[in-house]
Amino acid sequence: MSILNSDGLYLDDVHVGMRLVTDTHLLDAEQIKAFARQFDAQAFHLDEATAIDTLFGGLAASGWHTAALTMRLLTTMRPKIAGGIIGAGAEVNWPTATRPGDVLRVESEVAEIRPSRSRPDRGIVLLRAKTLNQRDEVRQELAAKLVMFRR
Amino acid sequence: MSILNSDGLYLDDVHVGMRLVTDTHLLDAEQIKAFARQFDAQAFHLDEATAIDTLFGGLAASGWHTAALTMRLLTTMRPKIAGGIIGAGAEVNWPTATRPGDVLRVESEVAEIRPSRSRPDRGIVLLRAKTLNQRDEVRQELAAKLVMFRR
Repeated sequence: MSILNSDGLYLDDVHVGMRLVTDTHLLDAEQIKAFARQFDAQAFHLDEATAIDTLFGGLAASGWHTAALTMRLLTTMRPKIAGGIIGAGAEVNWPTATRPGDVLRVESEVAEIRPSRSRPDRGIVLLRAKTLNQRDEVRQELAAKLVMFRR
Repeated sequence: MSILNSDGLYLDDVHVGMRLVTDTHLLDAEQIKAFARQFDAQAFHLDEATAIDTLFGGLAASGWHTAALTMRLLTTMRPKIAGGIIGAGAEVNWPTATRPGDVLRVESEVAEIRPSRSRPDRGIVLLRAKTLNQRDEVRQELAAKLVMFRR
């Protein structure tokens, strides 16, 4: 079967409704704070005590940290995508805050396949991905436009 | 003027068309690779030589790195937002790849203000933000839904 080729999935290999899964990632408070120090230095991402009196009611990961971890998990997706995961854009929602102790995984589904008119060697695949924790709480909903190539 | 209060902007203080600017950030190849090793370990984000033969034609930052750097720059926005920058979700597009040597800044504009019906103490502000480099090349377009509070 073509999807078992070592070079991964081409545009020709995917179909709407196809599902892909990832490894898991255990997030702890230190990772949340380290990302925040670098990219989102706000009290609710940096310090448990200060976070209690904010909208989050406790330490919460930056939404962009959840997005970056989702990308990390997507790189573990099997089967792989030939040429790699190349995003042209994305829509992202954070229905609940990602917390220390979350064991994250990503469940994805191919939602649309749009062959390019101007460039016959490629197309855009809309991947809908949910980032869930060990209690199946949805931490992020992502709709990502991926560039995929034909064989 | 209310926007000069030390605790920052409330929902009552913003208007559609209001513009906000940030500091700048100089991105180098090492930062691109460090982010990639942690969150997006693909050849075009990790190694100059391998990247040449990919769609990017050279080392390029992960889109999620550009997004995280945009968040970093938004935390330098003046005036500040009271209660911090709390995103409920976002739409992000990467029209061109972010490259080593880019000096990034973010130019934002308030595009919509939607007071909450169920929670009169807050509302959602749609912020449209462009991440530009020193040659005004657009590296990212962001439409972020921010939670803002009333006085």
